[in-house]
Amino acid sequence: MPIRSREIRLASRPHGEPSLEQFSFDTVDLPDPGPGEVLVRNLFISVDPYMRGRMNEGPSYVPAFEIGKAMGGAAIGRVVQSKADNLPEGSLVLSSFGWREAFVAPAGHVQALDPQGAPLTAFLGTLGVTGLTAWGGLFKAASLQDGETVFVSGAAGAVGNVACQFAKLHGCRVIGSAGSTEKIEFLRSELNVDYAFNYNDGDPAQHLRQGAPEGIDVYFDNTAGPQLEAALSSLKMRGRVALCGAIAGYNRPVPGPRNLGLAIGKRIRLQGFIVTDYFPELPAFHAEAIPALLSGKLASHETVVEGLDQAPAAFLSLLHSGDPHTGKLVVRLGD
Amino acid sequence: MPIRSREIRLASRPHGEPSLEQFSFDTVDLPDPGPGEVLVRNLFISVDPYMRGRMNEGPSYVPAFEIGKAMGGAAIGRVVQSKADNLPEGSLVLSSFGWREAFVAPAGHVQALDPQGAPLTAFLGTLGVTGLTAWGGLFKAASLQDGETVFVSGAAGAVGNVACQFAKLHGCRVIGSAGSTEKIEFLRSELNVDYAFNYNDGDPAQHLRQGAPEGIDVYFDNTAGPQLEAALSSLKMRGRVALCGAIAGYNRPVPGPRNLGLAIGKRIRLQGFIVTDYFPELPAFHAEAIPALLSGKLASHETVVEGLDQAPAAFLSLLHSGDPHTGKLVVRLGD
Repeated sequence: MPIRSREIRLASRPHGEPSLEQFSFDTVDLPDPGPGEVLVRNLFISVDPYMRGRMNEGPSYVPAFEIGKAMGGAAIGRVVQSKADNLPEGSLVLSSFGWREAFVAPAGHVQALDPQGAPLTAFLGTLGVTGLTAWGGLFKAASLQDGETVFVSGAAGAVGNVACQFAKLHGCRVIGSAGSTEKIEFLRSELNVDYAFNYNDGDPAQHLRQGAPEGIDVYFDNTAGPQLEAALSSLKMRGRVALCGAIAGYNRPVPGPRNLGLAIGKRIRLQGFIVTDYFPELPAFHAEAIPALLSGKLASHETVVEGLDQAPAAFLSLLHSGDPHTGKLVVRLGD
Repeated sequence: MPIRSREIRLASRPHGEPSLEQFSFDTVDLPDPGPGEVLVRNLFISVDPYMRGRMNEGPSYVPAFEIGKAMGGAAIGRVVQSKADNLPEGSLVLSSFGWREAFVAPAGHVQALDPQGAPLTAFLGTLGVTGLTAWGGLFKAASLQDGETVFVSGAAGAVGNVACQFAKLHGCRVIGSAGSTEKIEFLRSELNVDYAFNYNDGDPAQHLRQGAPEGIDVYFDNTAGPQLEAALSSLKMRGRVALCGAIAGYNRPVPGPRNLGLAIGKRIRLQGFIVTDYFPELPAFHAEAIPALLSGKLASHETVVEGLDQAPAAFLSLLHSGDPHTGKLVVRLGD
């Protein structure tokens, strides 16, 4: 009796705003694992804004999703059948096979996970690729120094909240923006950012003048658009921008920053990056992040949505400024 | 009998396009040089696009020109009266007192010049601040490596032509753009660039696809505007942009690059710079540039305009794509 797995596939490519129509649900029969293979049942899957780029035709950061194939992405699961000595039944694993209940794969295509007492979901968020994105963007792409002033857009999101926390841990002054009153409250009360503002409310440049009267040293850009323009105005001499994401432009074109010329006189450096650039730094990242999380200095902020059926809607919500989720958004499939 | 000096002053600040009305001619009586001072008669003065920024109110790269004061800028002159032991009469000096026939200054405020057999005007161009701008932008800001492919906009101009020459000296493939048929011919026949195009003629992105089918590694940006956008599309993985100038936007606003988001996936680095950043590198620059010039591997391309009266019109022409000048534009005041 084969094990069946429901999965969510890309049904069609969106033009502009994606909708639920872009996804289809299908059920597949899984083969028995062959020699060296494991059968993994997913416990949590990750939904992330960067997946919007992969829904387009042609190259993005990472290869495009294929129509008729399951949506890829990070997941945490448990081995339920094993033909691999190094991954006995019951092992926890990280994988990148995405939005499906279960899968069969060679043991070498998944990564054994020892949670060391941290919650499993943290390995999709603060301690995972999401956290490494925040850490690498701040300290590698933007060369953030202790005590500097940093502005993080999309600060209540998965990457943004970790960026704010690391910056605070390094004695920085942090200005954070988000798209709703609830998120602003989260930035203030949970992340202790020094100045929080709603980017739908007023001129971001005016907010930066209030939050950082002497200017910012670093801008961690999750949005592009008007906030990037405001940041270029605010940046001090030799300021740095980590170009991490461009949510404002994922579904529709946004104008480029009209004031990019300021980068000349201010010697600003803008550095695009993808988290994979910093995979070699993972041990250094974990050496800082895991003890900080276990000691309570670093929090894993997440919103957990229940059930595979909810994944498409949860994902789509991430692309809107009215998105109600704070922190990392994960979908729970089982325990 | 005092020595008199004619000078050109900023009469008013331009709004958008500047015109001859922004300048006034005045004559001043120079004092006799005091102890430690020299009286210098200028032989050549420099006119440069960056001066447009200094005509505006408020901070630019360098302090704004003051209304009613002479236009500053680089000049080469000869000491005609000296009360300073280290600068006897007849000495050649570099200074930054700009658009005037003569001046009195402390010897420490000018720099002795030994031309080593090179033409004097080269020290305002290829061997001077202009050349250092090209060299520093390519090799420091953009980390150009031997054999890479580089696109230079405004390639027939003072900075651009030197950037093309240094890139060719380093075995690079060079794509250059300029604004007239005559300049395109100059790029091809004098600079031996590998692909030259008129940026007023057709889509710059299409030209880059032809000139660099595999993409460019480095973009040396003198213009911003549509050419920056085309360069972002063409840049390869881990490409670099030296943000040097933004002539397209000096007199009127230009839209920002709508495709800056490409910098994320391609890990592009954009680095703004000002030549003063590389003043500490001047010995390294001269060690490469002076022997190259004396041996004929590097040429000093310049247009010489005769007489102080012509300086304002020559300067204004630099801000237009129809500008007839190639190479460095200098104004000769005497011999």
